Amino acid sequence: MQQNVKPKVVTVTLNPALDLTGSLQSLSLGSVSVVEQGSLHPAGKGVNVAKVLAELGADVTVTGLLGADNQESFCQLFKAMGATDKFVRVAGANRINVKLVEKNGQVSDINFPGVAVTAANILAFEKTLFELAATHDVFVIAGSLPQGVSADMCANWLEKLHQLGKKVLFDSSKSALATGLDAHPWLVKPNDEELAEWAGQALDTPQQCMAVAETIAAKGITNVVVSLGAKGVMWLNDQGWLHAQPPKMDVVSTVGAGDTLVAGLCWGEINQWSKTQSLQFATALSAVAVTQVGVGVDDIEQVNTIAQHVILTQ
Amino acid sequence: MQQNVKPKVVTVTLNPALDLTGSLQSLSLGSVSVVEQGSLHPAGKGVNVAKVLAELGADVTVTGLLGADNQESFCQLFKAMGATDKFVRVAGANRINVKLVEKNGQVSDINFPGVAVTAANILAFEKTLFELAATHDVFVIAGSLPQGVSADMCANWLEKLHQLGKKVLFDSSKSALATGLDAHPWLVKPNDEELAEWAGQALDTPQQCMAVAETIAAKGITNVVVSLGAKGVMWLNDQGWLHAQPPKMDVVSTVGAGDTLVAGLCWGEINQWSKTQSLQFATALSAVAVTQVGVGVDDIEQVNTIAQHVILTQ
Repeated sequence: MQQNVKPKVVTVTLNPALDLTGSLQSLSLGSVSVVEQGSLHPAGKGVNVAKVLAELGADVTVTGLLGADNQESFCQLFKAMGATDKFVRVAGANRINVKLVEKNGQVSDINFPGVAVTAANILAFEKTLFELAATHDVFVIAGSLPQGVSADMCANWLEKLHQLGKKVLFDSSKSALATGLDAHPWLVKPNDEELAEWAGQALDTPQQCMAVAETIAAKGITNVVVSLGAKGVMWLNDQGWLHAQPPKMDVVSTVGAGDTLVAGLCWGEINQWSKTQSLQFATALSAVAVTQVGVGVDDIEQVNTIAQHVILTQ
Repeated sequence: MQQNVKPKVVTVTLNPALDLTGSLQSLSLGSVSVVEQGSLHPAGKGVNVAKVLAELGADVTVTGLLGADNQESFCQLFKAMGATDKFVRVAGANRINVKLVEKNGQVSDINFPGVAVTAANILAFEKTLFELAATHDVFVIAGSLPQGVSADMCANWLEKLHQLGKKVLFDSSKSALATGLDAHPWLVKPNDEELAEWAGQALDTPQQCMAVAETIAAKGITNVVVSLGAKGVMWLNDQGWLHAQPPKMDVVSTVGAGDTLVAGLCWGEINQWSKTQSLQFATALSAVAVTQVGVGVDDIEQVNTIAQHVILTQ
């Protein structure tokens, strides 16, 4: 029986976003432009991670703070994913990121503000989070923070989950990342840019990245994973460094590639895979993700094939 | 008891829209622009008319075709209005009209495409519409048509409602208006521009407008109301022409002024007011509407005061 039970995970998205993407002939300032093809889809790092985990076969519970005014496509996605929806509803609309692509390839981004979270919303979220901690061991907290949630609040949640013995995979940036690094997440996955921003210096070589990652690990973080784009993934834990180099892929879109890597690492953990198996799989999953538009596992067979071509180096 | 029963009306919105409005310092093509203040609100002519009628005190049932992916703010509005929601849900997202206002006052409109309506959606809508006809006598059909609904289909619904003895207030434009004028709506309310477009000629004087309106009335349309902006409203029926001139107002936004006029005329009809009382009220309601942002009845006392200053001329 036990083998048939899906491994459980909670993903936390504190600042979900709706991506409104349109392609048009040209964008005219000061007049009316007509979008020829448009799409509206729910996003945000934690939502992306949840989608990939659900498609891999995990029993996913999604939580965080969700604006009530434009929640419908999120609700539809959670239903389609078979995820348990434990999002706290917040008055107002989730932030909308409008992306307009002109015929000549020029892309304009127009980012709308999101909800303003109240103290009552935060209390409701904390209640939900720690109720879930009673029945879950692995959490993914990913993405930016909305107005009303400070980096300290987020770090406080990380620390409490740590003290409860939970494993938290934490993927954020800027002050949320900086403050969170002192709060014992079980795994962090900065990319090279985020690492450089945190370090306050350019990191031009893998050796420089490794040195900074080692400083982070010394804070009591069990796993530091650094994603380097086409240069692969480096993972530091108590077994030392492991580097994974994926084969060269035809890149269509790198949107969500980092989230897919986190989902792959999480999938390895909740299946109790070895470090090498997890990294090989997660690297392949992320490599395949860049060859497609949108986030999700289109072809798990392809992922498994690519995984065999991921080169691991100690 | 009878006096306490709210008068009933059905509003039909075949192509609802979400208005996503943002103000920003400046809009940069090819890079990231950050919106400082944003709002997302449900719109579409029929929805606007419904909101005004509900605020006046009508028992409003809303129907039409609503995209399921971003319906939440519509559902919230209908609930807040106390309206009965009989919209048929359609796969996909309702069209989004993005309006970006820069610090220098420049406004850029980016209009996304809406849902594509299927034959099954249309059958479901027809079923709903004619079920409602069993218990309702007055209908407002307002706004444009989505992809998949032809002007002929719309005209067919108008004609069937006419044959059932229903009063339909019809407010549309272009081919939907042109085709619908042959299908016996009970009232139409083109503005001077829509009238000119239908006539295929410039209409520079009230006399020219009146001549075209008389051609329309001759098609068997009981009421032809022409809105002339600041120049007031002209109404032709079997009692002849009546013109209403509102006092000069400080215009803040003319968005929804025409919809408010239709709502006012409908309110007069469902309360069985005289032509003069209806026109005086509807003209005042619309005049007050241009002094506010957004659609709705903020101050009914002000409307009643302005109504006393509307000048009627046979």
